[in-house]
Amino acid sequence: MLLQLNTKSTLSKKDQVRETLAQNILDGLFEPGSRLPSCREIATQLDVSRNTAVSAYRSLIDDGLVAAFERSGYFVSDHIPRNLIEDTKDPRRKTSKTANPVNLAKRCEKNGRLPADLAVVERPENWYDYPYPFISSQIESALFPITEWRECSRLALSRKSLSLWASDFSYDDSYELVKQIRQRLLPRRGVFAKDNEILVTLGTQQALYLVASLLGGRGKKVAMEDPGYPDARNIFNFTFENIKYIPVDEGGMCVDKQLADCDLVYTTPSHQYPTMVTMTMEQRKKLLNRAHKHDFIILEDDYESEINYATKPSPAIKALDENGRVIYMGSLSKSLSPGLRLGYMVANADFIEQARALRGLMIRHPPLVTQHTAALFIGFGHHDALMRRVRPVLKNRWHVMLESLDKYLPDIRRYATFGGTSVLLQAPAHVHTFDLARKLRDKGVVIEACAPCFSKPDAGKNYFRLGLSTIATDRIDQGVELILETLNEFEA
Amino acid sequence: MLLQLNTKSTLSKKDQVRETLAQNILDGLFEPGSRLPSCREIATQLDVSRNTAVSAYRSLIDDGLVAAFERSGYFVSDHIPRNLIEDTKDPRRKTSKTANPVNLAKRCEKNGRLPADLAVVERPENWYDYPYPFISSQIESALFPITEWRECSRLALSRKSLSLWASDFSYDDSYELVKQIRQRLLPRRGVFAKDNEILVTLGTQQALYLVASLLGGRGKKVAMEDPGYPDARNIFNFTFENIKYIPVDEGGMCVDKQLADCDLVYTTPSHQYPTMVTMTMEQRKKLLNRAHKHDFIILEDDYESEINYATKPSPAIKALDENGRVIYMGSLSKSLSPGLRLGYMVANADFIEQARALRGLMIRHPPLVTQHTAALFIGFGHHDALMRRVRPVLKNRWHVMLESLDKYLPDIRRYATFGGTSVLLQAPAHVHTFDLARKLRDKGVVIEACAPCFSKPDAGKNYFRLGLSTIATDRIDQGVELILETLNEFEA
Repeated sequence: MLLQLNTKSTLSKKDQVRETLAQNILDGLFEPGSRLPSCREIATQLDVSRNTAVSAYRSLIDDGLVAAFERSGYFVSDHIPRNLIEDTKDPRRKTSKTANPVNLAKRCEKNGRLPADLAVVERPENWYDYPYPFISSQIESALFPITEWRECSRLALSRKSLSLWASDFSYDDSYELVKQIRQRLLPRRGVFAKDNEILVTLGTQQALYLVASLLGGRGKKVAMEDPGYPDARNIFNFTFENIKYIPVDEGGMCVDKQLADCDLVYTTPSHQYPTMVTMTMEQRKKLLNRAHKHDFIILEDDYESEINYATKPSPAIKALDENGRVIYMGSLSKSLSPGLRLGYMVANADFIEQARALRGLMIRHPPLVTQHTAALFIGFGHHDALMRRVRPVLKNRWHVMLESLDKYLPDIRRYATFGGTSVLLQAPAHVHTFDLARKLRDKGVVIEACAPCFSKPDAGKNYFRLGLSTIATDRIDQGVELILETLNEFEA
Repeated sequence: MLLQLNTKSTLSKKDQVRETLAQNILDGLFEPGSRLPSCREIATQLDVSRNTAVSAYRSLIDDGLVAAFERSGYFVSDHIPRNLIEDTKDPRRKTSKTANPVNLAKRCEKNGRLPADLAVVERPENWYDYPYPFISSQIESALFPITEWRECSRLALSRKSLSLWASDFSYDDSYELVKQIRQRLLPRRGVFAKDNEILVTLGTQQALYLVASLLGGRGKKVAMEDPGYPDARNIFNFTFENIKYIPVDEGGMCVDKQLADCDLVYTTPSHQYPTMVTMTMEQRKKLLNRAHKHDFIILEDDYESEINYATKPSPAIKALDENGRVIYMGSLSKSLSPGLRLGYMVANADFIEQARALRGLMIRHPPLVTQHTAALFIGFGHHDALMRRVRPVLKNRWHVMLESLDKYLPDIRRYATFGGTSVLLQAPAHVHTFDLARKLRDKGVVIEACAPCFSKPDAGKNYFRLGLSTIATDRIDQGVELILETLNEFEA
């Protein structure tokens, strides 16, 4: 370790050594019980006498930070005094004290906005510890074929394939994964693409960011659904000059002349986020016709397309697109695992070329090992098997959920939907769902308050979402009953 | 598969079916030898009569695209006529024909520039097939402890840790990896940081893109070394309004009043890219003082910091920084594997918070499985062991290289360096190193022409780089001799 003394310190050499060691112990760089450098090492490294080092250690022993053992040397104390560690124990503890700290964050402002100020739907990080976790878009650990994934990962990490994954120079994706996407996934959505019309991304999130960075800019306008996906709004805020919010009805995003002056229209037709409404075929065709007429581009986020219970999935808008007006985004993160962060984008080759170059500047490419593993996983049929296993479970939960809602919350408004991993509900106007969510957590129930999905959070303050991804089927009824009970605690 | 007919087609139904199937076969969606949908399935899906389907298949058989087997059905022909597949065999084949294609790429222009037009140092993708691959910044497959990595990967993928890697909601990094970076990697560079001052990134590339996006913008100016890292220039072109190019001498980036009006100064002090020159301590202190005086931020890219043969590594500039003026970037991609894409950034907590939020918008977070695997790999000591194994090999190659250069190319200018995985050379003015590289490939030698590293490529047209990462030590001498031989073919 390269220990260093503070060159501007006015302390004695001994106290400088003591301060440096104490700081490193308190910062957790030397862990309790671990051996510290010998006096000789300290003397050499910090250019002080051995006596100075001995005397610094003596003070640290008095402070309770260090323990000395005869003939073994110095060790970090196992019982560091509480008052000394107080502020370092907090993982969100303050930054180190600096002489005259520069305010770097201030320099990151764009149009008066900071990236960290953006809206997100909140849920507790340890949601899986709650008995009634109504969470959406998550994988359920018990259903994931981990043995199969590990087997694919092992094969992907073979020495034979090392030349493949050791390379960081090319911007190309795993040929095998692109093939699986082209042959197995896209045709189910009615989309037929060539290799150079497909780009692998780090989840849908990255596809969205790439498209927004490429097509956004000064004077550019994007339209999105309201309510809609909060991270899309966050990204557009950072990349477009204007956002136009378009209402959603039972047929999906409303398509009318409002879209005329937009450069890009972002939509989630399979299951509208967060209402889960499916856009009608009629509406899809109307949207494409508008795109031709007003010369805008459609960004189709095929959210939860494969998860339908009541009807067959409709083909993607991209399947109807004959002029390359539609940029299509799909996700493997939802079906495989969100932690893997894999998605894909389909568009004309000339656009994919630009998106690939920009992705290259941002991250080169999504890790090839993960791509390769996913290709094997899909190729061996594990992905299809997983979907076959998950769908009936979700379908059953969905029906149980609707029954429970009919039973306990018949007056609560909900949208008519065919599927998806959640149900959006509108509580009475006097109920703030942030408060509802907080109260419910005390009873072990996790729900998602949906105000952040609305362009005007106030308009959505009484909306909440019940997710089906992680709740045990036999707990749904009781969970919904607890929601009714808690709703009744709010006074009109 | 959702087959679809072209609704606007003026062809007969039969020929529409024929066209659709042919297109899909030629696009490779149905592979040679694979079974095609039955006439009944075609009839149902495309809403045509069975006779139409039979007649379409008859034409496809005549075309040589389909083979029929009595009582087994229709299959894609194993011998598709060459003239039909010609343009689909090329991986860079043209986009599908569309009725009236929209020029999406044109809409991606920013200040008249497109992401795909940017400069890169070229090398053949199959460099490992050449007998003399003088390649830099790559891992050598033979040295990588693949068994250990697979073991760590297996542990990271255990069902117990599934709750960790299945989550995509949090923007946090793997706590274990951050701890390893904080305790094991940074102290060697003299950098002591807290958890909230560290961000894991997808390679240094992402750290660079994040910092440039956060601190760049309208009216902002960045300084970088010339010659310098081409992708840094590409990223700054996309994110800053102005780039100032700063010359490099034997002491590293020149530090003078030119930097006064910059917002950000990007530098590679450990080994300057591509000269490999190490910035002197004096120069580092001068740079920090300038940063205070002129209120700019330093972005320190600690490129190949651990790979020094002739002297001990100097502490990072970040180690001297008391005010949070330095943003530090380190890479695990180089030492572990470029295919894994892992790096990290160190800065004041307020800046890391913004960078984390922007990273969240772009990709949420680097895959947690990979982070977790890397944490175990470092924690078990495999990373240190790898570095101990790689360093003497590289050191030996470096000395052999210098000897060969003294022997064959004594008049060729080179910078005085202490290490790194490459040596930059300046051929005589009349030699264009792109041509040299092309001629050498025919003799099995791969070198990297370095014009793309220069702000004015013409000024660098006679520079080239010899990498040490992948060349077998006993081939260096002969490789350099081949270079001399080929240089002599150029007429002054």
